[in-house]
Amino acid sequence: MRKGEAADPAVHFVDDYLPALLARASYLISGEFHRIAKDRGFTVSEWRVLATLAGNEPMSISRLAMLTVSKQPTVTRVVDRMELRGQVKRIAHDSDRRVTLIEITPAGSREVAALIKLAREHERRVLDPFGLQRGAELKATLKRMIALHPEHPDADDADEDA
Amino acid sequence: MRKGEAADPAVHFVDDYLPALLARASYLISGEFHRIAKDRGFTVSEWRVLATLAGNEPMSISRLAMLTVSKQPTVTRVVDRMELRGQVKRIAHDSDRRVTLIEITPAGSREVAALIKLAREHERRVLDPFGLQRGAELKATLKRMIALHPEHPDADDADEDA
Repeated sequence: MRKGEAADPAVHFVDDYLPALLARASYLISGEFHRIAKDRGFTVSEWRVLATLAGNEPMSISRLAMLTVSKQPTVTRVVDRMELRGQVKRIAHDSDRRVTLIEITPAGSREVAALIKLAREHERRVLDPFGLQRGAELKATLKRMIALHPEHPDADDADEDA
Repeated sequence: MRKGEAADPAVHFVDDYLPALLARASYLISGEFHRIAKDRGFTVSEWRVLATLAGNEPMSISRLAMLTVSKQPTVTRVVDRMELRGQVKRIAHDSDRRVTLIEITPAGSREVAALIKLAREHERRVLDPFGLQRGAELKATLKRMIALHPEHPDADDADEDA
């Protein structure tokens, strides 16, 4: 503690610690929408994969895993299942045929469109108490934070205990 | 889409979707500190449990699981191990002896103190590019969001696919 910096004993470390606040807010807000998605028959991973592919370029499993904050074997299993249902398909990379990319199908796009509409409505309800400006600032700050902290090459945030 | 609200085709849904931004920022920022904690011999769960108990009242396993965004069996296993090491201990609840609470020991407090110092330094580095005011606003917004979205009684954000 620096001189003149008073500790408020009523505030516990984790209650004012950014990573803990991000984790808790993320868990609570995502959890709310995941209940909506589950009611419509989507698992959390199915929702994340389809939402990430919707309107996006085809991408590799590893990029999909990164963007959905999921493990690669999980994404592979989900993509297998969704391919059987015709929601996504595997295609070869244009310039390197050995690379496989995942693309959303028109059927997958149609099925996820209704859920994306519900997601935007949920997001609006979450941001509403903060007002337009504060909501936009929050998103801008998070985007810049994400840009400033690229994925670590050895990223493996697996908890040995989980 | 409402009238007059133009969609920017260059912005994909998940790139501007609050729950996705929270999840990604949380993963990247926590991941950075988890590498620092691991270098000092702490698993992610050990760090979360000790940081949550530090300077705090004794609490039940279920509350500890909630605050650390972890599953109860995981927290129980971690507490068992840390109890053997003398970092935490189980005590009976004052008014209801059937309830067991977890308390950090003086040894546990000493061991986590150095890590909390590193965590505060890491947090300062993360917030530095945003300036004091924007950093404080971010934390205030997250705290209010957490307060506005209490844990759902049937909260189970487990991904069936993970």
